[in-house]
Amino acid sequence: MSDQASSKHANFIIRSQEPLNGGPPLPALAATAMTPNDLFFVRNHGSIPQIDPAVFRLEIGGMVQRPLTLALADLRGLPRASVAATLQCAGNRRDELSAVAPTPGELPWGAEAISSAVWEGVPLREILRAAGIDTGATHVAFTSSDDVERSGRHFGFGGSLPLAKALAPEVLLADTMNGAPLPAEHGFPLRVVAPGYIGARSVKWLQTITLQAEPSDNYFQAHAYKLFPTDITAQNVDWQGGMMLGEQSLTSVICDPATGAKLAAGPVLLRGYAYAGGERLVERVEVSADGGACWQQAELLGQPERWAWRLWQARIDVPPGRHTLAVRAWDSAAQTQPSEICQVWNFKGYMNNAWHRIAVEAVE
Amino acid sequence: MSDQASSKHANFIIRSQEPLNGGPPLPALAATAMTPNDLFFVRNHGSIPQIDPAVFRLEIGGMVQRPLTLALADLRGLPRASVAATLQCAGNRRDELSAVAPTPGELPWGAEAISSAVWEGVPLREILRAAGIDTGATHVAFTSSDDVERSGRHFGFGGSLPLAKALAPEVLLADTMNGAPLPAEHGFPLRVVAPGYIGARSVKWLQTITLQAEPSDNYFQAHAYKLFPTDITAQNVDWQGGMMLGEQSLTSVICDPATGAKLAAGPVLLRGYAYAGGERLVERVEVSADGGACWQQAELLGQPERWAWRLWQARIDVPPGRHTLAVRAWDSAAQTQPSEICQVWNFKGYMNNAWHRIAVEAVE
Repeated sequence: MSDQASSKHANFIIRSQEPLNGGPPLPALAATAMTPNDLFFVRNHGSIPQIDPAVFRLEIGGMVQRPLTLALADLRGLPRASVAATLQCAGNRRDELSAVAPTPGELPWGAEAISSAVWEGVPLREILRAAGIDTGATHVAFTSSDDVERSGRHFGFGGSLPLAKALAPEVLLADTMNGAPLPAEHGFPLRVVAPGYIGARSVKWLQTITLQAEPSDNYFQAHAYKLFPTDITAQNVDWQGGMMLGEQSLTSVICDPATGAKLAAGPVLLRGYAYAGGERLVERVEVSADGGACWQQAELLGQPERWAWRLWQARIDVPPGRHTLAVRAWDSAAQTQPSEICQVWNFKGYMNNAWHRIAVEAVE
Repeated sequence: MSDQASSKHANFIIRSQEPLNGGPPLPALAATAMTPNDLFFVRNHGSIPQIDPAVFRLEIGGMVQRPLTLALADLRGLPRASVAATLQCAGNRRDELSAVAPTPGELPWGAEAISSAVWEGVPLREILRAAGIDTGATHVAFTSSDDVERSGRHFGFGGSLPLAKALAPEVLLADTMNGAPLPAEHGFPLRVVAPGYIGARSVKWLQTITLQAEPSDNYFQAHAYKLFPTDITAQNVDWQGGMMLGEQSLTSVICDPATGAKLAAGPVLLRGYAYAGGERLVERVEVSADGGACWQQAELLGQPERWAWRLWQARIDVPPGRHTLAVRAWDSAAQTQPSEICQVWNFKGYMNNAWHRIAVEAVE
């Protein structure tokens, strides 16, 4: 697996080699509305399968009227669609949570476990219609052909979507990413893209689709990717409890300058991203030069896209000295972000959407 | 108009007589999942029209293929649906905002400008289908037959929904409320019920439906019910700016005990409501006896309903002394509420969803 990262840019930051996990430098993330494929973040829990497209078969079963086995050629006759969508790992910005209290055994993501691309493929609902949905089916489960190991057991990564979401037009079985075939790291030959949901539901190297009456019982749906209250720890957790993650929450990040930067005092250009989960849009982004006492509006770049982040920039006056710069966003449901990291701390380190703060020093 | 409140309960709290505005005492609000009609909050901007159902006509026009004029009898042949839905004024909990800085000319609502009912009527989309939607129509505007006066000009209250929402199955033209005909105060004979959106979009005494390419230009859509940043005031406001309110945000409130209550030290029963706007569900409610440093989970009562609030209760230990009790909720997008009132302050006093706090004194 030594050349797993071979399709990635020289600046790609690798957080772990096996499984391969990494993301782009933050300034690169804020530079383009759609992230180049060679910089798009990678979140894996197991191997990167090498799949021969000629022998690849997708299995659709469970509570369906006609179980299907489809080759890639069978998909070619189906309608296609594309969507500009942001994917984000539920563990994005975990490093800020881990600084408050440990998040044992979890990857210490900075704010780079998020990227955006234009995905194209067959809407999942075309496949579900072809298979025919049985009465009583309420969830659509996916498994990957990767190889994950947990406690000596080997299995494929999996997760599920509620049926209503699975039938929405934006959910694709994608085979291209920014106009190019899916790279191996991103799920070649076929992956789910579930816009608005945590990245873990956009299953890569898609192998099976199973309609069922309950959410997936795969480890990554039934056990991992659950949100626990702040007073729960690895020691006292009841894994049956906790909230199964689904829709993303509202977040925003300063990508440039970097925390710890030494700047010339005066007007400073801030750049970053803001992302509203679910079907919500980013309506406003605000930045602060004094840690959140006073705010000014940032400029939203580009046009709103239902399923994609919004890049932003702001010029803010920074006098000589040490300062905490902060950002927060507002979404189309008139919601904003929690202010303090400790308000959203959880021992799995998920869904940190507190105000993003960076420490800078301005010199004359 | 002296008997405007005649159908209301003796305990109904009247905030203004003309126009009639008021709501129930908070403990009554937390007592039943669906609010009795005689306690349901009332938010008016003008008169309460007295409409003869025999002469009532609903006009559907604008960008439609077949303008329609419908009598109530014409609606009787159409499919019907019901929805358990919470309505909330965007100004709910304004009193907490006004305590930070003035919200000039706005009604000083406590936390009672919210209620829930089972609504029944004709799905709006049935009417829209009957009229036929022209290409280019993207908003559905409503006007009321009430009489609002602003700056000497008289007009009917109005507002609009995006077409996609107007076509959703939960949006009704309701003629009953908790199984009874709509009371005059609540829009007899016909009103819009737009679950998940601010109450102002659920137009009462519905008179016209107009399909158009832009949101309503009615005062209450184009001018009022907009969310401005904290640094904007009545003096420096540009009314073209600000965010047009739509989906409700996540909120939660302690209804019982009341703020200022003197309690026996020891376990105290807290009761209240939590409401997630849009299509989101309330997933968790937490209460704190120390102003938000430590939290414990409340018990969610009843079953989740997509469009209705969730009542909750919690027993919390309160030692002798003065305390600030607090509540916050988490929704199905893994979002929680902002902690401080000042974080959400705006001069119109809308969408206060900061942690709800009450001051109590416990005695031995």
